[in-house]
Amino acid sequence: MDFASDNVFGVHPRILEALVTANAGTAVSYGADDWTKRAEQRLGEVFERDVSAFLVVTGTAANALALSAMVPPYGALLCHAEAHIMVDECGAPELFTGGAKLIGLDEPGGKITAKSIERTLDGFVRAEHDPKPAAISITQASEMGTVYALAEIEAISELARRRGLRLHMDGARFANALVSLAVTPAEATWKAGVDAMSFGATKNGAMALEAVVFFDQALAEDFQYRRMRAGQLLSKGRFLGAQMLAYLDGDLWLDNARHANAMAQRLAKGVAASTRARLVLPAEANEVFAVIPDALHDELAAAGVVFHQWPGTDHAGPGEFLARFVASYLTSPEDVDRLIELLG
Amino acid sequence: MDFASDNVFGVHPRILEALVTANAGTAVSYGADDWTKRAEQRLGEVFERDVSAFLVVTGTAANALALSAMVPPYGALLCHAEAHIMVDECGAPELFTGGAKLIGLDEPGGKITAKSIERTLDGFVRAEHDPKPAAISITQASEMGTVYALAEIEAISELARRRGLRLHMDGARFANALVSLAVTPAEATWKAGVDAMSFGATKNGAMALEAVVFFDQALAEDFQYRRMRAGQLLSKGRFLGAQMLAYLDGDLWLDNARHANAMAQRLAKGVAASTRARLVLPAEANEVFAVIPDALHDELAAAGVVFHQWPGTDHAGPGEFLARFVASYLTSPEDVDRLIELLG
Amino acid sequence: MDFASDNVFGVHPRILEALVTANAGTAVSYGADDWTKRAEQRLGEVFERDVSAFLVVTGTAANALALSAMVPPYGALLCHAEAHIMVDECGAPELFTGGAKLIGLDEPGGKITAKSIERTLDGFVRAEHDPKPAAISITQASEMGTVYALAEIEAISELARRRGLRLHMDGARFANALVSLAVTPAEATWKAGVDAMSFGATKNGAMALEAVVFFDQALAEDFQYRRMRAGQLLSKGRFLGAQMLAYLDGDLWLDNARHANAMAQRLAKGVAASTRARLVLPAEANEVFAVIPDALHDELAAAGVVFHQWPGTDHAGPGEFLARFVASYLTSPEDVDRLIELLG
Amino acid sequence: MDFASDNVFGVHPRILEALVTANAGTAVSYGADDWTKRAEQRLGEVFERDVSAFLVVTGTAANALALSAMVPPYGALLCHAEAHIMVDECGAPELFTGGAKLIGLDEPGGKITAKSIERTLDGFVRAEHDPKPAAISITQASEMGTVYALAEIEAISELARRRGLRLHMDGARFANALVSLAVTPAEATWKAGVDAMSFGATKNGAMALEAVVFFDQALAEDFQYRRMRAGQLLSKGRFLGAQMLAYLDGDLWLDNARHANAMAQRLAKGVAASTRARLVLPAEANEVFAVIPDALHDELAAAGVVFHQWPGTDHAGPGEFLARFVASYLTSPEDVDRLIELLG
Repeated sequence: MDFASDNVFGVHPRILEALVTANAGTAVSYGADDWTKRAEQRLGEVFERDVSAFLVVTGTAANALALSAMVPPYGALLCHAEAHIMVDECGAPELFTGGAKLIGLDEPGGKITAKSIERTLDGFVRAEHDPKPAAISITQASEMGTVYALAEIEAISELARRRGLRLHMDGARFANALVSLAVTPAEATWKAGVDAMSFGATKNGAMALEAVVFFDQALAEDFQYRRMRAGQLLSKGRFLGAQMLAYLDGDLWLDNARHANAMAQRLAKGVAASTRARLVLPAEANEVFAVIPDALHDELAAAGVVFHQWPGTDHAGPGEFLARFVASYLTSPEDVDRLIELLG
Repeated sequence: MDFASDNVFGVHPRILEALVTANAGTAVSYGADDWTKRAEQRLGEVFERDVSAFLVVTGTAANALALSAMVPPYGALLCHAEAHIMVDECGAPELFTGGAKLIGLDEPGGKITAKSIERTLDGFVRAEHDPKPAAISITQASEMGTVYALAEIEAISELARRRGLRLHMDGARFANALVSLAVTPAEATWKAGVDAMSFGATKNGAMALEAVVFFDQALAEDFQYRRMRAGQLLSKGRFLGAQMLAYLDGDLWLDNARHANAMAQRLAKGVAASTRARLVLPAEANEVFAVIPDALHDELAAAGVVFHQWPGTDHAGPGEFLARFVASYLTSPEDVDRLIELLG
Repeated sequence: MDFASDNVFGVHPRILEALVTANAGTAVSYGADDWTKRAEQRLGEVFERDVSAFLVVTGTAANALALSAMVPPYGALLCHAEAHIMVDECGAPELFTGGAKLIGLDEPGGKITAKSIERTLDGFVRAEHDPKPAAISITQASEMGTVYALAEIEAISELARRRGLRLHMDGARFANALVSLAVTPAEATWKAGVDAMSFGATKNGAMALEAVVFFDQALAEDFQYRRMRAGQLLSKGRFLGAQMLAYLDGDLWLDNARHANAMAQRLAKGVAASTRARLVLPAEANEVFAVIPDALHDELAAAGVVFHQWPGTDHAGPGEFLARFVASYLTSPEDVDRLIELLG
Repeated sequence: MDFASDNVFGVHPRILEALVTANAGTAVSYGADDWTKRAEQRLGEVFERDVSAFLVVTGTAANALALSAMVPPYGALLCHAEAHIMVDECGAPELFTGGAKLIGLDEPGGKITAKSIERTLDGFVRAEHDPKPAAISITQASEMGTVYALAEIEAISELARRRGLRLHMDGARFANALVSLAVTPAEATWKAGVDAMSFGATKNGAMALEAVVFFDQALAEDFQYRRMRAGQLLSKGRFLGAQMLAYLDGDLWLDNARHANAMAQRLAKGVAASTRARLVLPAEANEVFAVIPDALHDELAAAGVVFHQWPGTDHAGPGEFLARFVASYLTSPEDVDRLIELLG
């Protein structure tokens, strides 16, 4: 019963099969192959507009590279204090931007708001002694399993435009957010004012695949140089393209996300009904955060439940801790129900 | 008939099969899985000593990251003027080292010599106005299909030690060099004084896999941070580990390289006997560089031969050009013979 | 009546005179001149031990360069949330370290504590997904005009040693702190566990002069390269050396600081006795922070008082604001008394 | 008799006097003072157009910062193989650009030509595997004491425009070139197609002063952030402004350069007439490069002549070496004549 992360699960069979199929024959290297071209085109179809899309291997690379096209070295980027780019990527954004300053806003629920962003921007009163505010990054779904409503994104993008900032979306779990919102990819992104995004696939069934998608294509100028010098241009690029094609084909990505979200909601209901655990945030995507008693830690481990004790002490009182359970496209209802049973 | 590069070919069936096998069940993410651990250990066995090995996705990342552990931002790195790190990686070494200076030595045959390195070092007379010489990088096999003899490497490493420099080997085609030299991996590297290497697998049958191998393990301290912030730590790391295990298992890597080299030699013999083409360098690994008349360019293309016209004008006279033909583990003797026939 | 900053005042006559004297004749360039050598040696005498000292032009350069020798690109540096390096240097530390992460601890009074540092370090639980904690920087005197007691520094340095971190001191106003503490330079720094410092002179009477002083001389290895590539090695270096010699000669630096501190304390007493203003922090060096009513803002301006309204809303209630008044070596008692009178 | 460099001489009395005068009273810090504003304005008058000018402290900083606004991190900059930015700045351009690649063209006489630049650009055939060609830098006067004719600059700028590159001029010895060409500052720069320059003053009589001057003011957007984070924004900025005003006032800069050039030409004539030394290049500015016999080395030293033995072996045969003699605004005809006598 592995609830540690969605990335502990393997590759969806249809994606694996696509890799095997793509293996036949020779193909032009370094991303000039047909699979890659079609994948980039398919992303445009998915988003219902021309986009500039670049396939890369990890979410950290996708985020840091996207930001490097949006924030100058002397710029500041505003994000949540617990954003992946802030606390999980070992300074990759700083490396790829050439030293930009990430400013983390500490707000409950894993989401930042136009209000707190504006308050922070109003504090930039030191002229060039401050870095230049350049972009905002939101994580959709957030690190805490919550999902930005379209109105929340629009409020942020309206502020961004008004202040001359760019808006980036870390979509490592974009599919989960999308099915949660029940809107189109276009509505969830550029129609709400997002300029560029990291479009995640790895956590949702791919092997190693993310795309940097630019809705504002002016930002994509020269991006191929950035990807190359970051060591993210695969020589056998067809294996990224093939993954993406299979991921999008027949809405596999949405089906996978729907299943994961459903499992998380099933678990959340169980937690809500539990006598020993309690939800701290609504499970709007595929993650469930629950406060549970310390005693339960060993019980769960003994029963073979793998999960993460989450850093931070905001939610848990003495004698208890915050646990994160992540559901994936492969998580079974049986496993969820056994976990609920264990939680009492 | 694709002789454009060894990376236009797909994945060896045994490696692809390993990916499929590794897909079962869940696995700890971010390189803490069993496949990765075993792969790192296997590399130690291959090199007959303790090594610190780190799996990454591209050769550019392997090189640039390895160098970032060997050359400070204010340092200088000496390499061949046509080295991959110098002309094919869009400044990745500069990015990952934080701006170190690459100094390219222009020598015939794709190989640098202790003599030219020493002469260059003797030119560092400007104290801190010059960058600090910190490391040397050699490419084995070289970009021109030649192979450093052990004595040549030892002469360079002796100089490196004497001058306080580190020695890096770009082994994107290490297997091809190794079977050409007919020595052990240990003899070809650390026993000859190499401190760290990029151990290539992609060009020789893997999907997307290189390893940074540190023989001087002190250099590996903190390297996990460097890999992480470069966006090269895969969440589903098992798929790198599984590739590496299959690549090394049963000496697949050596068999693949032997075949590729044999095909290149078969072609080289054909070129040597040709009336219209001529060899410019010995084909010591899996690449053949031949000067051919301009007229032949279209003939070859019409016959379906894919290859690269190589930049630079050192070897070709008027009315002719330098062509590069690369053999791979999948190149067939029939294709080679047809190419020979076309070359006349 | 200029209380805006200590850097709005000019150069002390003895330092200016030293520049004129040093102008005679020719001198070896790039810091190899006698003035520079003697200045570096004098710093060793001042600190009663061998030090490695490097003269530079600005405090930002001193800080960022010193940190670049203490924090790797993948490292984390802990400092106060309002430290100069955090909010006043436009990302210079990020530039010179190659992208290290600055982590600001938000504590009252402008000083960080061993306790909050340790709590922060305990939050580094994500292995290489976190940057590697590498150093701590304290500002002495702090940005809020407070001064670290030796015991506070020792508690931090003990923690730093125990956790394998380096300790840096931003001493832009070191002289002010030193005379406030009434200890020796040695006691205030390396004897309390400081590894390296930025030794400020500009704010205290020099024209443009700071020194990076390494007590742990191992950190200074290669530092001359860092200074050079930062554009901080003056060709006519004698004019930095001459400033430093005059600054230290006859304890000018301490006399200047004593005067500035005395003026600040005179003002602080006036504020304490005022009916309209109130002190928010003890004036331990040469800065006075006072909360004053909004109405007073225009009154002061009309009377020719120049000062800064300080960012942040921690101390001031509605209808009032936080004002910073800085005293310098040239601030007159008359000006202070007039300001006190205006404050009512 | 110091011919080592123009920077071994001190500050011109009128500039020193300006520093003393500027010392009176308080002044707004960080470059918002009147001296700085007037200096920036004066530079516009000198160049007969609106410019964006930024005062900094060293030529290395001026060059590297200017380039950082013209070359992206993934870009390539073409310059002479012996340019100051290439071999004398310890990688400062790499630091400030974030890792751009400098490509040195090895041409005789210290000057690059449109022809060799175009040939180099034509070699960029590897798409994003190459860095993106972004700018060209020429040094005026060159490191070898030669001066680009206007037609040479125009040929380069025409090529730059045609290829979408920017043109930078390293004008550490701009005044010397200008009086040599006998044209206006405008004609020598933007009218010939220069986009931005490093306008040197230190070598020609200032204490520590250079200006980055943007003729294409779009390049200057955000430059204040770059200068700040480089640690080049002086708190007591008036002392840079005052230097520049005195430097330009009454054409002091041109008078200084005229004298230095005249001394160099006097020496060059002496060398031409000498039996033991020979000129290798025309002395078009204030530097004289002469090949002299090894035996003369000690004779000159014994007579108190300070000079540099120049690296490189292009010009000198066995038993002789290349010597560089630099004349300054303070070099006396008597010293020159004594040197000529010694050269025989």
